[in-house]
Amino acid sequence: MSPTKEFSLAPFDLVLFGGTGDLAMRKLLPAMYFRHYEEQLPDDGRIICVARSAMSTEEFKQEMERTVRQHVESMYDETAWASFCDRILYLSIDITDQAQYQQLVEVLGEVPDRVRVFYLSTAPGLFSRICDGVAKAGLVTENSRVALEKPLGRDLASAVAINDELAEVFTEAQIYRIDHYLGKETVQNLMALRFGNYLFEPIWRREHISDIQITIAEQLGVESRAGYYDHTGAMRDMVQNHLLQLLVILAMEPPVSIHPDAVRDEKIKILRSLKPLSGRDVLDSTVRGQYSDGTVNGKPVIAYRDSDGVAPNSFTETFVALKAEIDSWRWQGVPFFLRTGKSLQDRRTEIVINFRSVPHSIFDMPRVPNRLIIRLQPEEIIKFQIFAKGRGDEMRLQSVDLDLDFNQAFKKRQMIAYERLLLDIIRGNQTLFNHRDEVTAAWGWIDPIIQSWEQYQVEPIPYAAGTWGPPASSALIAKHNCGWLEECP
Amino acid sequence: MSPTKEFSLAPFDLVLFGGTGDLAMRKLLPAMYFRHYEEQLPDDGRIICVARSAMSTEEFKQEMERTVRQHVESMYDETAWASFCDRILYLSIDITDQAQYQQLVEVLGEVPDRVRVFYLSTAPGLFSRICDGVAKAGLVTENSRVALEKPLGRDLASAVAINDELAEVFTEAQIYRIDHYLGKETVQNLMALRFGNYLFEPIWRREHISDIQITIAEQLGVESRAGYYDHTGAMRDMVQNHLLQLLVILAMEPPVSIHPDAVRDEKIKILRSLKPLSGRDVLDSTVRGQYSDGTVNGKPVIAYRDSDGVAPNSFTETFVALKAEIDSWRWQGVPFFLRTGKSLQDRRTEIVINFRSVPHSIFDMPRVPNRLIIRLQPEEIIKFQIFAKGRGDEMRLQSVDLDLDFNQAFKKRQMIAYERLLLDIIRGNQTLFNHRDEVTAAWGWIDPIIQSWEQYQVEPIPYAAGTWGPPASSALIAKHNCGWLEECP
Repeated sequence: MSPTKEFSLAPFDLVLFGGTGDLAMRKLLPAMYFRHYEEQLPDDGRIICVARSAMSTEEFKQEMERTVRQHVESMYDETAWASFCDRILYLSIDITDQAQYQQLVEVLGEVPDRVRVFYLSTAPGLFSRICDGVAKAGLVTENSRVALEKPLGRDLASAVAINDELAEVFTEAQIYRIDHYLGKETVQNLMALRFGNYLFEPIWRREHISDIQITIAEQLGVESRAGYYDHTGAMRDMVQNHLLQLLVILAMEPPVSIHPDAVRDEKIKILRSLKPLSGRDVLDSTVRGQYSDGTVNGKPVIAYRDSDGVAPNSFTETFVALKAEIDSWRWQGVPFFLRTGKSLQDRRTEIVINFRSVPHSIFDMPRVPNRLIIRLQPEEIIKFQIFAKGRGDEMRLQSVDLDLDFNQAFKKRQMIAYERLLLDIIRGNQTLFNHRDEVTAAWGWIDPIIQSWEQYQVEPIPYAAGTWGPPASSALIAKHNCGWLEECP
Repeated sequence: MSPTKEFSLAPFDLVLFGGTGDLAMRKLLPAMYFRHYEEQLPDDGRIICVARSAMSTEEFKQEMERTVRQHVESMYDETAWASFCDRILYLSIDITDQAQYQQLVEVLGEVPDRVRVFYLSTAPGLFSRICDGVAKAGLVTENSRVALEKPLGRDLASAVAINDELAEVFTEAQIYRIDHYLGKETVQNLMALRFGNYLFEPIWRREHISDIQITIAEQLGVESRAGYYDHTGAMRDMVQNHLLQLLVILAMEPPVSIHPDAVRDEKIKILRSLKPLSGRDVLDSTVRGQYSDGTVNGKPVIAYRDSDGVAPNSFTETFVALKAEIDSWRWQGVPFFLRTGKSLQDRRTEIVINFRSVPHSIFDMPRVPNRLIIRLQPEEIIKFQIFAKGRGDEMRLQSVDLDLDFNQAFKKRQMIAYERLLLDIIRGNQTLFNHRDEVTAAWGWIDPIIQSWEQYQVEPIPYAAGTWGPPASSALIAKHNCGWLEECP
C-alpha cells in the first residue's frame, strides 16, 4: 500500500461554483489533479464544475486541456489525466435562476449521502444567492460543506452580514473560510517548529525576544485586479487576513491538541489580545503607501494611479507597515512589525525574530541581535544568525548562520496550498480554516485603523516602484531597533 | 598596516628545552614559523633551541630543513623561511650540568630585559632540574615565563610536588601550564558561542538540558608511546585534562570579563563543584576498557597487550567512559557523559547537548530530543537537530538539521593550537592556561576514581579495535537516554 493511500478519502462530490474562473483553472483543478495523480482520491469522487457559460462537459474538458493542463506541468501523465477527466462534470447554470438548480439536484441526488462540498469560487456578491439556491433546492445535507474565499466582507459589519447569511443555511461546523496562507506547508511548519521542538518554546517570549517582523512583499503591481483592488487596498487585501494569520501562529499559546477547536481557540485568543489601535494612535503606528513610477526587476512600472482601472486621484494604499502589540503575559511590550506591499524591490514572505542583546558582553562583537529568520517564500529556509569567534589571533566575534533549506532536507515535492485545503474540506478537518470569531475579531481590530485613516484623511505616501516602500516605514521601526532585516547589517 | 601587525609582540627570547624533540619539530617550530610568515613576530624575536646533541646552529638548521619544513606544508615560502631561520640559535647543553647553563647566560644576557620564555618540552622528570638550573644561573628575571606540557604529575600528590617545585623559582603569574586543547580555535569558540550569543544562555541549564555528552575518540592505537602510556592510561592521559577542560568550558558560569583571572576563577569553580566519585560508586559510574585485536579503517590492529612496550598482562585502560555530575544550581541532576579511547571506530571530538523532551506533544513525532551537536574535530561544525513537518498530506514531524560549517563560513585558515598558545605566553596572557588550582582540583576529583579501580581491582573490559568501546559504555548511558549519539536514530 502506498503511503498516500493510507490517507484516502471517503467518496465525495465537489461542486465548484465559478468552475470556469481563474482560481478554478489555475489552482483548484490542478490541486485536485495532483491528489488524483498521487492516488489519494477515491474512485467515487466527482468534480462538478458550475458556471454560466453554455458548454457541454466535453467542451469543458477541452477547455481544461487548454488551461488546466499547463498548470500541471511536470506531473502531467496521459493515463492519470484521462482518468482525472472522467471525474469531471460540467453544468451550465445561471445561479440567479432558482429553477436551474434542478440540474444539480439531479446529479447530486444520485448519491444523496455522499460528502458534498459547495466551493464558492465566485464574486462575494453571489455567496448569499448560491447558499440560498442550494438550500431551496434541498441540496444541503448533513454531509454538506461550504467553502469560501476572501474577501469575507470589507469591514466588520459586512463580514458579520455575510456570516449571518451563511449561518442561515450552514452550521459553523459546515463552513470552511479559506485563507490560502494556512494551506501552505511552510505556514503549517511554523506550528511544527514552535510546538514540535523543545528548543524554541522557552525563549519564545518577551523575556528573550526584542521584536518580531513579518513581511509579505510582492513584486507584482496591481495588474488585472485593479477594479477590485482600488476599492480594497493592502490593509483589507493582505493585513486583515494573511499578515494577521501569520502573527497569530507566531504568537499563540501551545494548543491542547491539534484538534481544530483547540487550535482555533488559541488563535482567537491572540486576535482578541491585539492592543486596539484607534484615533490619533493610528497615525504613529501605521504607514500607508502607494507606489509611483519606478523599476522592478529591471522593468519599468507605471504609477498605481496611472494604471488601468484605478481612479487617477485614488487614495487606496498599495503598501502598509504597522506596529501591532499583544496584551498578554507572554508578549507585553514586544512590537510585531507587519508590512506588505506591491511593486516592492523583492518578492518575499519572511518572519524575523530579533532576540534581545547579550546583557553583559565580554567580547568585541557586532551590535546586532541574534536572529531567527524564517523565510516562507520564495524558498523555504530557516536561518539562525549567531556569532562565533572569527579565525585568527583575536577573540573578535563575527556573524555566522546556521542554515536549513527545506528543499534540500526534503526531496519530496511541496504540496500547493489548495491540495491540502481541498482535502481537509473533503475529510472535514477545520483546523486550517478560519472560525467566524476569528474573522470578526480581525475585522474588529482593522476597522478602527481604516476609520482613523479616513477621519484624519491620511493620504498614502508615494514610494517608487522597486523600493521597500516609503521611508516612513523605516522610521516606524527605527524607534525600536536598527530596522527591517534588509536595513540591518 | 596589515591586521596581524596590530597584534605584533614585544621582542622576546623563546628558549625551547627539548629543542630537537618531536613536539618542537612537529608543532612548536612550525607554529612560530606560521606567525613569522604572517608577520606577527617582532624583528627582535629569537628562538633558542636547547638540547643535548652536539650540533652547531647551522647543523640544527639543516635538521629543521629536513623535519620542520615538511610540517609547514603549503605555507612554505623561501624568503620567509630564510628570515625565520635567522631567528634560530642552537645550544648544546646537558641540563643536568649546571656549568653548561653559562651558554644560555651569555646569549640571554645580551638583552637582559627582554621577555624570556623557558618552554619545557622535555620529559617531566627534568622540569625541576631545569627550573633549578635557570634559577641558579640567574636567568629568571621579572620578564621571564615558564611553559610546561602535560603530564603534570600522575596523581594529586605528584602534581602538588611539581607545582611546589615550580613555585620555588616562578610566581604563579609566570607559569603557563599547557593543555593544548585550550589553544584550539574550536575550543575558544565554545566560549564565544556561550557568552557571545543571547540565544544559548537561557536554555543552557538543568531546566532545559537533559544530558551532555563529550567524546574524544581516537583511531590511533598506542603506537610509539607505549612505554609512557602503559604507566599512564586514558584516565590520566585524556580525562584529567582535555575532557575535564571541555566539561568546564561547557558548564562554567558567565565570567565577569575575559581577563585571565575572571575566566580561570569560573573554571576552578566548576572543578570544585564536581560531585566526588569514590568507593563503590565508581563501579557504577565509570567504564574501563582496553582494546583487543580488531580492524580500524580497514587495517588490522593488534591488541593493546600485544603491542611493543606494553606489559602482556597490562591493566592499563585505553578507554574510559564515565558519568560526571556537577553540584550547582545550574547543573544539579544533569549527567555529563565523558568518553575517550584509542583504536575506536572513528576519530572525533564532539559535544552533544541533549535537550529535554517536548513536555506535551501534540504531533506524531520521533522520540528523540532536540540536540545541539558541536564537533571540534576533525571538522568544525555545529548542528541543531530539530523537527519540522515532513512534506505531504500529514502533520508528521521529521528530524532536520540547522547546519554551520566553519570552514565554509570562514575562508581564513585555522590557526593551530600552538600558534595561539605560544603568542599568549609571549604576550603574557594566561587565559588559556591552567591555574595551579585547576590542576589540583582536577587531580583531586580523578584520584579517588583511580584508587577505587585499584581497590576493587577493576580489570579493563576488552573491546575490539575499531568499535566504540565495550558494551558497558552503552549500558552506562542507557539508564538515562537512548545512548551515545551514534546509537540514537
